[in-house]
Amino acid sequence: MRVYNFSAGPSMLPESVLAAAQREFLDFSGTGMSVTEISHRNPKFEEIVSEGEALLRNLLRIPDDYAVIFVQGGASTQFAAVPLNLMHKKKADYLVTGNFAKKAYQEGLLYGDAAKIASSEDRNYTYIPDPDAVPYRNGTDYVHICSNNTIFGTRYTKFPQTEAPLVADMSSDLLSRVIDVSKFGVIYAGAQKNLAPAGVTIVIAKRSLISDPLPVCPTMLRWKVQDENKSLYNTPPCFSIYMAVLVLRELAAKGGIEAIEQINEYKASLLYDLIDNSSFYRNEVCKKDRSIMNVPFTTPSKELDAAFLKGAEARGLVSLKGHRLVGGMRASVYNAMPIEGVQALAAYMKTFEKEHCHENFET
Amino acid sequence: MRVYNFSAGPSMLPESVLAAAQREFLDFSGTGMSVTEISHRNPKFEEIVSEGEALLRNLLRIPDDYAVIFVQGGASTQFAAVPLNLMHKKKADYLVTGNFAKKAYQEGLLYGDAAKIASSEDRNYTYIPDPDAVPYRNGTDYVHICSNNTIFGTRYTKFPQTEAPLVADMSSDLLSRVIDVSKFGVIYAGAQKNLAPAGVTIVIAKRSLISDPLPVCPTMLRWKVQDENKSLYNTPPCFSIYMAVLVLRELAAKGGIEAIEQINEYKASLLYDLIDNSSFYRNEVCKKDRSIMNVPFTTPSKELDAAFLKGAEARGLVSLKGHRLVGGMRASVYNAMPIEGVQALAAYMKTFEKEHCHENFET
Repeated sequence: MRVYNFSAGPSMLPESVLAAAQREFLDFSGTGMSVTEISHRNPKFEEIVSEGEALLRNLLRIPDDYAVIFVQGGASTQFAAVPLNLMHKKKADYLVTGNFAKKAYQEGLLYGDAAKIASSEDRNYTYIPDPDAVPYRNGTDYVHICSNNTIFGTRYTKFPQTEAPLVADMSSDLLSRVIDVSKFGVIYAGAQKNLAPAGVTIVIAKRSLISDPLPVCPTMLRWKVQDENKSLYNTPPCFSIYMAVLVLRELAAKGGIEAIEQINEYKASLLYDLIDNSSFYRNEVCKKDRSIMNVPFTTPSKELDAAFLKGAEARGLVSLKGHRLVGGMRASVYNAMPIEGVQALAAYMKTFEKEHCHENFET
Repeated sequence: MRVYNFSAGPSMLPESVLAAAQREFLDFSGTGMSVTEISHRNPKFEEIVSEGEALLRNLLRIPDDYAVIFVQGGASTQFAAVPLNLMHKKKADYLVTGNFAKKAYQEGLLYGDAAKIASSEDRNYTYIPDPDAVPYRNGTDYVHICSNNTIFGTRYTKFPQTEAPLVADMSSDLLSRVIDVSKFGVIYAGAQKNLAPAGVTIVIAKRSLISDPLPVCPTMLRWKVQDENKSLYNTPPCFSIYMAVLVLRELAAKGGIEAIEQINEYKASLLYDLIDNSSFYRNEVCKKDRSIMNVPFTTPSKELDAAFLKGAEARGLVSLKGHRLVGGMRASVYNAMPIEGVQALAAYMKTFEKEHCHENFET
């Protein structure tokens, strides 16, 4: 039985995409080879990479003067690539709104004067600092944010307007909502939430910013090199790129990001409305900053949380355990989570509340 | 029709492994999820990573004081990771025996006094310099070699014995022949030749050497960090690791590396014997240094090379075109190439020679 997988990442992929990949797993595009076996220099695979870039450019309306590349190592590797490509004046501002934003900041410290100019650590990252009230410094190379905070369930609904180029880790919300790429200097995202199996990372970078990486930047982390080689400087993570293309085709066929965003808003509202209309479930996040990708919530006690998770599992609603930094539950409802999956979770939440709301519990 | 794919990498995978992965592609180990969707923190996936490490340790008899990690970015990323983890005295020796050995050397130059102390560039990399006659320098951090040179079809049959730790890029021959890991400080290998789909890289490193990476080393390139986190510091390339484990299980079941090496020696001999007994085909490599993984060869003319490739393709013998730096043909016969595939190629070579050996051609 196929389950509804609420994992924060790696996470669900569209069943139609999985089925298509399964069908041609031993014979990619009539080549008599698996896509896992084909040379990355084979024209059929080069077409896949080009198609992936073109689909991303169309779906996100990426301006022509931006590079769009597929790289390896996850967002965590980009935490270093950002300063290594951009930190010429050795000065950068970081807004720390969660665990990964903090890791990006700590990596920045390896290469220069990285400053934590705003943070929501004081209330366990349950809100996003007002981007207009942040004391940006003068003369920085960039300002770094994490647009959606997977662990804590927050997101920016308004992005900083900064003199320095804005750099965003969008690992958990790229392709889930409409963004104006031209407002960013660099966007990067591990693909394993909304796009593909783990192993490929997307970088979208304004070309004028990336022409001069620092001398200590490893060649493989030089965005310019990857751009000039159309993501084929060395052997790329072929299978993950192929799967990304299958997913991107489906996003395009579904009506693009505008349509996807509407569905995602709807899916998240099913859960938030239920939580807000209940005195049993709680979500600690400042309402205006709530993520539509990751919905953390708790019941009135740890014991009930455990019982909730056990019952969910039995119903095929899996990977709902919250991150240890937050506790409780977390429903990650990325692009590939069907509405039916969210409805099934909501129905179970109602049933569970009804069964347990009259129990004595410590609040 | 499944073809015989002689690609230099990505390359063939065992058909049994592909079929097994296909069967459970939508339901990994009874989880109701694809292995491409499962969280890397799921115990079932953590088991896969542990099993992969254990299988590598057994198959290669890796001493306990060596780290065995799965990382991303290919060998090309390790070209930087090597100096970034090891180059404390900023001095290292490189033996340049091919294109990738040269790239590793050039990357070393970014971080210190990397010296090309031996090279076979003078004869287009058709031989391996005698490791005992190389002028190793004193006080180096390491000596770097590439054990098998994919493009040129050479390999070391005797490894350097050096005071400084020996570091080897074994991307194209790890797991294809018996090696004594204890003689090396560090071994690394992109997996897409003998082990798995592209996207995962193996690093085997003596722990005492890797405790103190350079301050500018990105966290993700710190072998120590990856070792301490059992390859799960961030989201790993889950699917490639899973496939690697399926392949490793099969290697173990086949009798381990000793058995595999015998088969590989036999497969290569089918081609080299044919070439050596022919005045039609040529292989330019010094006999004692011939690779058993990559067999480059030419016919008497470029026109016949082109005709050979066309006829091969029609027979389902694909990706035989030689690298542009060498020309002609190259048959890569990694672990997963069945003996039947090599026999089919040899039979075609004989037929082609018979049909064309009396033609007038320029020599």
